[in-house]
Amino acid sequence: MQMDVPRGLAGVVVTDTALGDVRGREGFYHYRQYSAVELAQSTGFEDVWHLMFYGELPDADRRRAFLAETASLRRLPDDVRAALPAIARSSAPSGPLAGLRTALSLLGAASGLRPVYDLDTESRRRDALTACAAVPTLLTALYRLGRGLEPVEPREDLPFAANYLYMLSGSEPEPARARAIEQYLISTVDHGFNASTFTARVIASTGADLAACLVGATGALSGPLHGGAPSRALDTLDAIGTPDRIDPWIRERVLAGERIMGFGHPVYRTEDPRSRMLRGIAESFGGPLVEFAVQVESQVEVILAELKPGRELHTNVEFYAGVVMELCGLPREMFTPTFCAARVVGWSANILEQSEDSKIIRPAARYVGPPPVLPQAS
Amino acid sequence: MQMDVPRGLAGVVVTDTALGDVRGREGFYHYRQYSAVELAQSTGFEDVWHLMFYGELPDADRRRAFLAETASLRRLPDDVRAALPAIARSSAPSGPLAGLRTALSLLGAASGLRPVYDLDTESRRRDALTACAAVPTLLTALYRLGRGLEPVEPREDLPFAANYLYMLSGSEPEPARARAIEQYLISTVDHGFNASTFTARVIASTGADLAACLVGATGALSGPLHGGAPSRALDTLDAIGTPDRIDPWIRERVLAGERIMGFGHPVYRTEDPRSRMLRGIAESFGGPLVEFAVQVESQVEVILAELKPGRELHTNVEFYAGVVMELCGLPREMFTPTFCAARVVGWSANILEQSEDSKIIRPAARYVGPPPVLPQAS
Repeated sequence: MQMDVPRGLAGVVVTDTALGDVRGREGFYHYRQYSAVELAQSTGFEDVWHLMFYGELPDADRRRAFLAETASLRRLPDDVRAALPAIARSSAPSGPLAGLRTALSLLGAASGLRPVYDLDTESRRRDALTACAAVPTLLTALYRLGRGLEPVEPREDLPFAANYLYMLSGSEPEPARARAIEQYLISTVDHGFNASTFTARVIASTGADLAACLVGATGALSGPLHGGAPSRALDTLDAIGTPDRIDPWIRERVLAGERIMGFGHPVYRTEDPRSRMLRGIAESFGGPLVEFAVQVESQVEVILAELKPGRELHTNVEFYAGVVMELCGLPREMFTPTFCAARVVGWSANILEQSEDSKIIRPAARYVGPPPVLPQAS
Repeated sequence: MQMDVPRGLAGVVVTDTALGDVRGREGFYHYRQYSAVELAQSTGFEDVWHLMFYGELPDADRRRAFLAETASLRRLPDDVRAALPAIARSSAPSGPLAGLRTALSLLGAASGLRPVYDLDTESRRRDALTACAAVPTLLTALYRLGRGLEPVEPREDLPFAANYLYMLSGSEPEPARARAIEQYLISTVDHGFNASTFTARVIASTGADLAACLVGATGALSGPLHGGAPSRALDTLDAIGTPDRIDPWIRERVLAGERIMGFGHPVYRTEDPRSRMLRGIAESFGGPLVEFAVQVESQVEVILAELKPGRELHTNVEFYAGVVMELCGLPREMFTPTFCAARVVGWSANILEQSEDSKIIRPAARYVGPPPVLPQAS
């Protein structure tokens, strides 16, 4: 029996999930039963990580233990560390996500991960904690090696976000910057059943090990139709240059039928709730970049309302995410990898959930080529 | 709008394809409009590769050119070759598919592959030819390095299958063995819309580069519910040991509710056409292993018909694939990688086809956790 469904599986319910949801009409998304934006405002990254993995926010004791446990998993095995210079060198033509994909695959292989269906829940979670804790170490080491710098060893006394910035630059970040990046990371842990999350779950449904799932998801995230690129919105700000050029620059693009990077979202009909939160963070820093971004946003909304009436086109997460990361000193090529450092927690939570099922995800296709000649029945 | 579908997307038509189909009731599968088994009997691996990539079998001139072109792509870039010893060493705990996953990722990154949607059809095909030509080189190099042996450089004067066996052992294979493996490889290039093929297409639908897609598919293939393991069927033959033990051994397992490896297929209700062909190849070699395998097959069918009446349980592709690979001198840990060396051509053909679409594959999930508290409208 075959069943027809909308192209690209749009709206097709593949599974139940208790991890969260996106309510596009209401401009709201949640992790478990909590507003993701409220979590970003009131908790730390590890709290949300714990929430996604265990289903509840940790109390103070559990929080301390979880911070210590995850911090202790940041160091890489020696043979993985030894292979990173070669990976960084070889990946130079393709950039940091391709490097991460390779390094994560190597880390998984070196760890001798077992198929998810062969493990109990606790062992699966342990594999996932290890991978998520190692991703910032891999990303920052590959970034530094690509610039001829020595990797910076992780510090166990810093929380996830601060340690990430520390490993990137080699110096301890200002608290306001660490907190801003932490809030960005929290806001991007998960966001519905997107293509990389779905990829992770399809691979998990075969029973493959955690690294196989994460490596596939990283590949999907690298696709231009999916991962987005917070740096593109910033490139747009650069290209516009000055306030007086906003109006003609935007009109020209829109009339030529081009998309304006950083505007519009396939799900949200209202303002993207991530965008609103990140604008607030950006405004708390202030300065010419933020002022210019706010100006661009308001003018673009006016122009789009005029030229594309009836379409609700607002800034999406990319727009202010790029601004916030720039303010916090992240190099642009690390914008998408930083996104990935958070999303790997969401993927892992999805893999853990999928592993409790035991049904392979295997759809069908309709053959539409020339009819084959069947052999005569013998 | 959400739409409910069967669990695991069973029977859900995700896309149209002109690449082929599996007709489970008729015990028949085809590549394009040709019977896959007939192709295995009458053509070479490169003919089928060409058929999958270009939609038609090559004529004699085109065939020569295609053999020369693909043979010239077998050598690895120097920096990838230099990284293989470290990958082989690190992957030892997880085996050859995890090693291939890492090496393919590195090869893709080193090649600076571009997103599939940014390329024209010819450039995409070139990327895919390069990857498929390199997989046997990667697999055999990793295998040999894992045993402390130097990799064997590819030879351009041998066809795909013979060169694969040559790189594995270091000596030119007997023609009958090379042909048997070639027929196995042809028979396993593609087989419906399985989980690894679907994974490759989901990743391709994001526009990610070819390596991202293949690496994800390799991960899915490594899952115990998917990739299968032709070595498991052979392990079963070993475990049974002697003809007098077939009956009690099988009865005990079946009555305990265990699956007999190498028997049963989710799609075929008849004999698996691949199994029939591979049995023929095995019988052309003859010898005690083949005689024993045939005995096991016929006794198991009798016992299963008695203990599970009404269920059509026949040997699947694993059963005689294992026997044929053993007869051809392949080490057991290379059985699934050998499968992968052929399937990468099928994945690539699917990626090429998916790249002509531009719609991301992004299904939905239903949130079933505790209800979230929505913020008050402001």
